[in-house]
Amino acid sequence: MAAPTVSKDLDGWFASNDKRIHDELFEFLRIPSVSASSAHDKDTLAAAAWLHQKLAAIGFTVETCPTAGHPVVVAEWRKAPAGAPTVLVYGHYDVQPPEPLDLWTTPAFEPTIRDGKLFARGSVDDKGQLWVHVKALEAHLAVRGTLPCNIIVVAEGEEEIGSEHLAQFIAQHAARLACDAVVISDSSMFAPGIPSILSSLRGLAYFEINVQGPSGDLHSGMYGGAVVNPAMALAHILSTFHDKKGRIAIKGFYDKVLPFPRAVLAGMKKLPHNDTRFKREVGVKALGGEEGKTTLEKLWTRPTLEVNGMLSGYTGEGAKTVLPAKSMAKVSCRLVPDQDPKVIEKLLKAHVKKVTPAGVTVTVEALHGGHPWRADLAGKIFDAATVALHAAFGKKPVIQGEGGSIPVVVDFQKILKVPVLLVGFGLPGENAHAPDEWISVDNFRRGLRAIATLWDEYTK
Amino acid sequence: MAAPTVSKDLDGWFASNDKRIHDELFEFLRIPSVSASSAHDKDTLAAAAWLHQKLAAIGFTVETCPTAGHPVVVAEWRKAPAGAPTVLVYGHYDVQPPEPLDLWTTPAFEPTIRDGKLFARGSVDDKGQLWVHVKALEAHLAVRGTLPCNIIVVAEGEEEIGSEHLAQFIAQHAARLACDAVVISDSSMFAPGIPSILSSLRGLAYFEINVQGPSGDLHSGMYGGAVVNPAMALAHILSTFHDKKGRIAIKGFYDKVLPFPRAVLAGMKKLPHNDTRFKREVGVKALGGEEGKTTLEKLWTRPTLEVNGMLSGYTGEGAKTVLPAKSMAKVSCRLVPDQDPKVIEKLLKAHVKKVTPAGVTVTVEALHGGHPWRADLAGKIFDAATVALHAAFGKKPVIQGEGGSIPVVVDFQKILKVPVLLVGFGLPGENAHAPDEWISVDNFRRGLRAIATLWDEYTK
Repeated sequence: MAAPTVSKDLDGWFASNDKRIHDELFEFLRIPSVSASSAHDKDTLAAAAWLHQKLAAIGFTVETCPTAGHPVVVAEWRKAPAGAPTVLVYGHYDVQPPEPLDLWTTPAFEPTIRDGKLFARGSVDDKGQLWVHVKALEAHLAVRGTLPCNIIVVAEGEEEIGSEHLAQFIAQHAARLACDAVVISDSSMFAPGIPSILSSLRGLAYFEINVQGPSGDLHSGMYGGAVVNPAMALAHILSTFHDKKGRIAIKGFYDKVLPFPRAVLAGMKKLPHNDTRFKREVGVKALGGEEGKTTLEKLWTRPTLEVNGMLSGYTGEGAKTVLPAKSMAKVSCRLVPDQDPKVIEKLLKAHVKKVTPAGVTVTVEALHGGHPWRADLAGKIFDAATVALHAAFGKKPVIQGEGGSIPVVVDFQKILKVPVLLVGFGLPGENAHAPDEWISVDNFRRGLRAIATLWDEYTK
Repeated sequence: MAAPTVSKDLDGWFASNDKRIHDELFEFLRIPSVSASSAHDKDTLAAAAWLHQKLAAIGFTVETCPTAGHPVVVAEWRKAPAGAPTVLVYGHYDVQPPEPLDLWTTPAFEPTIRDGKLFARGSVDDKGQLWVHVKALEAHLAVRGTLPCNIIVVAEGEEEIGSEHLAQFIAQHAARLACDAVVISDSSMFAPGIPSILSSLRGLAYFEINVQGPSGDLHSGMYGGAVVNPAMALAHILSTFHDKKGRIAIKGFYDKVLPFPRAVLAGMKKLPHNDTRFKREVGVKALGGEEGKTTLEKLWTRPTLEVNGMLSGYTGEGAKTVLPAKSMAKVSCRLVPDQDPKVIEKLLKAHVKKVTPAGVTVTVEALHGGHPWRADLAGKIFDAATVALHAAFGKKPVIQGEGGSIPVVVDFQKILKVPVLLVGFGLPGENAHAPDEWISVDNFRRGLRAIATLWDEYTK
């Protein structure tokens, strides 16, 4: 069978419109739509308005819908032939704060191309990838005057601050947002030249543990040896969370963990991952985690418990002989299907209660939670994506997991009850939340072609 | 045998000079001689000059000796009959910083008497107690025109900043400071109405432990589960320092620990200590430490290992999903004879090396050390103190340990090779290093009589 290719008419349109597509993206990237900062509220609104206008210009019916936070831009095109499917495309127009500014080689909001990389805040997360979708839609409409399926674009302005109002928005507009599949490009490929489809995301259960000992800091000479030290008590509690084989030693923690499909695990083993390179990237001499699992298995298919922060007593320069009154740790679990953050909270609290020594009082507060997600990886949208990526990148996509969490994926799947396709064009080292964020120009160009081809393949 | 009493002539002199003695002490306390603050350097010098002048006025030959830091005031009276012993009295004229100022009921440097307590920074630590000695000497000279022994007063101005230059000063002036005993009043009584003689001080070995994991902070979702977490590694290391019975699990840690004399332990058991009251004071529901030891044994006779501080990752408000690059703990051991801080450093480093997991690098830095001390409790100066305290307080002194460290005590004993008597007039709760520092006015008056009687008893 011959390798699939990108349709000539679309490919030609992308080639002849390349400069304009880039210029417009630069305009989008110049708007500092930092959702976390109220000082940028008018910029965030400006980004929504700019996107609204661009979607309207290519023929979509657009509404900028207010929420209690930043608005959601909803754009609809529903003129596909009768019986054609409807796809919802999700993206976000807000960006991470650019700080620390002095670590940017060129200004965060002045897009610059160097060595095949387009540098700017939002270049890959997510304005650049959202723009891939907008321009792929424009290509169809410009070249053929139509689209083979109905499309709803949902672009939010609060992704970088936790998508606080989006689940509610989806639920309230469920009828209007009804569709056959959701497509999201807000992630990365496995490696340069290796496109990928995401098979899973881990969930999150984030806690703060506070240990209270004596009512005030004590002199460690006058009281040490008779009073339970809250920092030692915390160290003890944290040390009981794992067993010697790197497994989490909380009773019942793994009870709901589903085995990953054999095919996904087998595919994972074939990926060109290299532990030596991984160690060098991270800057360590040895890796850790569960015995008997590969690094990619650990990162994508297994739950974790990590300490994210820890504080007690005197942490300044030199010596202070204090027996601290209290200690604190931030602890979070990454979850995999079908673990539930609420159940994990109960199990962790019971464990902490059991291992807390007499002489201190411990409280565990749940700060934040999100469900894990796993793709079905079967069905028309996935088959279509496989062909489209192959056509645009000249290589079949790999199936990869993702260790982080995108809570909105679970919301779409739960509320709209349709498959969610995660296909992204970032790359490892893209600095999504750091200075010098970038997207590969080549990936951007191939992404345009892949997404335009996706609509053809999906409706074949 | 009749209870000993304070000689009538001395007692009478103290009674008729009571107001002046207090007034002068108030003058001394009003000088904010905060040795830690260079902004107070001229005040610290002023306190030395004030003391110099007062000692000269009662008939001592005084020299204010420069050091690389604050000066040492040396006052000598050497006109005792031939063959009379020489005693060195040590005290310090510098004080702790008064901050936080807003927690003082009345200003730190405006002495005020309320409910039988004299409140001021330095009232008990150590100007008030040094003043007890100066006025006891004046009493003898005023009433009898002489002293029964030769006296050297050594008052330093750097006690609150670690007595950095004193050991060297003692060594350089060892011939001039040669004596038969050292007497120090810079400690507390066991309880109101219960005078005490200190039998021991614990030493100190203070360390900072730094754990380095990945070269930078990582996203806990993208890397968690495969990279060793430095905060978890530190918690593990800290959790290995004690066994389940509360003993320190560092190999060789107890090797040099001498048993305490049976008489001292037996005396300790008779002291009116109450664990229920102790727990209430400290604000805990249960005590900790070594199984099978009483609280006073734990505090005075046993070595400890405490975490004084701990820091890693994100410790602000809310959740941040970071896998920290590093973690830090301040850890200190209180030592008892004959433990040596240098040896403990080696043992602790070897232990940490043994329990450090692969994937992180750990360094242990020794910040500070001091030797433990134990009094001989036999000999003329102790017998004399026992009688003198009995005479002034109407009750025999108890022998008590002290969990903290006073490194200068070891220096005097080692360099001058004479017994050191520690007899203090503070009380538990005196706020020595906190706002509202105070000395009991009754203890101050009885202290004057006890010290004056000491010179009689010592030369009987």
